[in-house]
Amino acid sequence: MQLPVFDDVIAAHERIAPWIHRTPVLTSETFDQLSGAQLFFKCENFQKAGAFKARGATNAVFGLRPDQRAAGVATHSSGNHALSLSYAAGRRSIPCHVVMPHTAPQAKKDAVRGYGGEIIECEPSTSAREAAFTELERRTGADFVHPYNDPRVIAGQATCSREFMTQTEELDAVIAPIGGGGMLSGCCLTLSTIAPQVKIYGAEPRQADDAARSLHAGRLITDDAPQTVADGLKVPMKELTWQFVRQYVADILTVDEQAIIDAMKLVWQRMKIVIEPSCAVPVAAILANPSLFAGQRIGVIITGGNVDLDRLPWLNQEG
Amino acid sequence: MQLPVFDDVIAAHERIAPWIHRTPVLTSETFDQLSGAQLFFKCENFQKAGAFKARGATNAVFGLRPDQRAAGVATHSSGNHALSLSYAAGRRSIPCHVVMPHTAPQAKKDAVRGYGGEIIECEPSTSAREAAFTELERRTGADFVHPYNDPRVIAGQATCSREFMTQTEELDAVIAPIGGGGMLSGCCLTLSTIAPQVKIYGAEPRQADDAARSLHAGRLITDDAPQTVADGLKVPMKELTWQFVRQYVADILTVDEQAIIDAMKLVWQRMKIVIEPSCAVPVAAILANPSLFAGQRIGVIITGGNVDLDRLPWLNQEG
Repeated sequence: MQLPVFDDVIAAHERIAPWIHRTPVLTSETFDQLSGAQLFFKCENFQKAGAFKARGATNAVFGLRPDQRAAGVATHSSGNHALSLSYAAGRRSIPCHVVMPHTAPQAKKDAVRGYGGEIIECEPSTSAREAAFTELERRTGADFVHPYNDPRVIAGQATCSREFMTQTEELDAVIAPIGGGGMLSGCCLTLSTIAPQVKIYGAEPRQADDAARSLHAGRLITDDAPQTVADGLKVPMKELTWQFVRQYVADILTVDEQAIIDAMKLVWQRMKIVIEPSCAVPVAAILANPSLFAGQRIGVIITGGNVDLDRLPWLNQEG
Repeated sequence: MQLPVFDDVIAAHERIAPWIHRTPVLTSETFDQLSGAQLFFKCENFQKAGAFKARGATNAVFGLRPDQRAAGVATHSSGNHALSLSYAAGRRSIPCHVVMPHTAPQAKKDAVRGYGGEIIECEPSTSAREAAFTELERRTGADFVHPYNDPRVIAGQATCSREFMTQTEELDAVIAPIGGGGMLSGCCLTLSTIAPQVKIYGAEPRQADDAARSLHAGRLITDDAPQTVADGLKVPMKELTWQFVRQYVADILTVDEQAIIDAMKLVWQRMKIVIEPSCAVPVAAILANPSLFAGQRIGVIITGGNVDLDRLPWLNQEG
């Protein structure tokens, strides 16, 4: 697969504009005081389907050739990419097939079906998922849209930081969470082209720090199924995203689970917005590294807001 | 006491502008589909101190004569008015005294003190509160700023709908929750002057429906301590607010507790914003009265976002 280039981002932006929100940028006196920096929060929790992933998925779906429409798209995901691909496919009225372990939360299954996606349930193991997916591809001929290791997806996610740059002035750095690296690769692609002076940081749970270790070791390290409250960040980077991260990311900061939960709750409390645990990871990283960011203008990507409101992490800690 | 007039609103708006946010207006495809109407949410949960009450409190504080500064302001409240008055007093660097039952949530006490307010604790009864307040006034000579039955406060709250009208076009109606009636009176004051064609609705918990019964009976009915999850709406109207409501409000709609909780959770889930139970009351009222609002452009005042994140009402229902 080829790395996407900035022309792909421009094309993606034009393609997806009718289907996605230009999400707002919020500021917070509380977090400015706590961090000693000036923070600008790009709120993709307000994005269609509740996460930035709508950008990449919509780019893939609306970039399909007309003759690919009938077979539709397919993916394996139990998270925001599944919702986003179903959302996008629904907008273009094409089929969307999602392989998902039968143990996935009912709310996620309902949301995928609510957008018109079809779910193929499998046992919760990598081999079962791969078998189900192979059978699905054979049966439907659907186009596989990987959650992040896909040039169309990366180009779509890259529209977020492009938009962000038109909404803020003279940022010193941008920080985003890293799981598979789709969003962070998008930031690398955009910023290295239009704002190379802006430093790019990743933020990662210490309990799922394969991206940080990869960057420090200079080679791609992938762990199997780490445990963290930031469930969007469990997956490892792959070839494409690793190429961007290794080349353009200044550092990847890691934070522990309690810091993630505390930062998440504090954002809800003071900013009055619903964010996922993943989004709290960069916030926690900023608060844990004041000397790195003090006095600077920092862009923070709030990646999504799809949370199970019946299972909030600060409540699960009790009892 | 005299009713405030629209010139007071204009003066208030100028006075408070440096200290309050021009809060955003959000829309939601989900709620448009559910209601069959076009809804515009004026998000005062993003206001300073987390609620619209910052407007009225700031107007009172910054309207004090210089010779009143040393004695400061005082109030009794265990809710958003206490936070807001402390916030405003802090901005003008004057004392703020708040009488509060010692049973009030620790988080509220911490927030008041965080803004620099001084708390005088009393037993949780009306007589104890009044005794504590009389003693406080005698001791400090502080200016009493009532949470809603104060022309300065009503004029301040009225800036919200004034701002709202510049952010939206041709609304058919505005709906706001009613407790003491400060926000709704502000809407009456502003809209009767600058947009008299806009209908004004109140929304109230069925279990605290004294405002609805007052409007229907044509006389002020006040209940003592009703029980509802919408804890901001337990207080009754008083002379000033009743004058506005009786004259300008088209109707007051009531909803049951479960509908409030469901609407609150749905707003969090789909709009990704943190709102108080009180704000969910008008949302629930719209969903419960589709024929009243279908096809219309409706402004909904989201009054605040100060919620105890450890005690969410949909979780307290379990077990």
